[in-house]
Amino acid sequence: MAKDFYHENVRLALEKDGWIITHDPYPLKVDDVGYEIDFGAEPLIAAQKDETTIAVEVKSFIAPSTVNEFHKAVGQFNDYYVALEVKDPQRTLFLAIPEDIWMRFFLKPIIQKSLARIQAKVIVYNPFKNEIVQWIK
Amino acid sequence: MAKDFYHENVRLALEKDGWIITHDPYPLKVDDVGYEIDFGAEPLIAAQKDETTIAVEVKSFIAPSTVNEFHKAVGQFNDYYVALEVKDPQRTLFLAIPEDIWMRFFLKPIIQKSLARIQAKVIVYNPFKNEIVQWIK
Repeated sequence: MAKDFYHENVRLALEKDGWIITHDPYPLKVDDVGYEIDFGAEPLIAAQKDETTIAVEVKSFIAPSTVNEFHKAVGQFNDYYVALEVKDPQRTLFLAIPEDIWMRFFLKPIIQKSLARIQAKVIVYNPFKNEIVQWIK
Repeated sequence: MAKDFYHENVRLALEKDGWIITHDPYPLKVDDVGYEIDFGAEPLIAAQKDETTIAVEVKSFIAPSTVNEFHKAVGQFNDYYVALEVKDPQRTLFLAIPEDIWMRFFLKPIIQKSLARIQAKVIVYNPFKNEIVQWIK
């Protein structure tokens, strides 16, 4: 189970924002007709603040192809979303994206359309300051 | 641009089914605020029958991790879908999946939920007979 490059930075950013980390990694296995599907190949962070519980898919976008990383992030988000609906429907899924990639790639209209189509909620983070810059719900 | 392992088999299956192949690969570049995004890293097949035009994302699922391939297929489908809405809105996108993987993995309820969430239309094909087994629209 390979942690994403900025996994620890996002964990620290959540703690700085007042969240309690409840699971790291958060297990996301679905038993389905005698077949266990492990969606958590890249570990999610689960956190809680008051009554709110979240799961965070951390993406660093340090691979050479941003488009390939984006395909993967979108596919994982959709699959994690349906798995959470079954396993833990109160928990809200977020995709965590570094601020520089958010500004440079994700604000393009076509990318915004793709995020909207899967109803992605996003945390924009700064990996150098270990801080959350924006919540997009 | 790497073709999928069963790319030619799906092309032959479409021709056998009476489709005319109009583009192979079908280019899917979107100009977006002075930034060209090439979504077609894995080439789509475009085909036509009477007035109906389709684009087909071929998936072989021969990689070791079916779940990773599935994440990627779902992310690509969603991104191709929004790109087609901009570039060629009359064309219908299909995800082509081999029959054995369809039976063994895709019929699981959690996987069906994930496909439904992105409104995926599917072509199930037999790569040994080069035939289309089922259209799921």
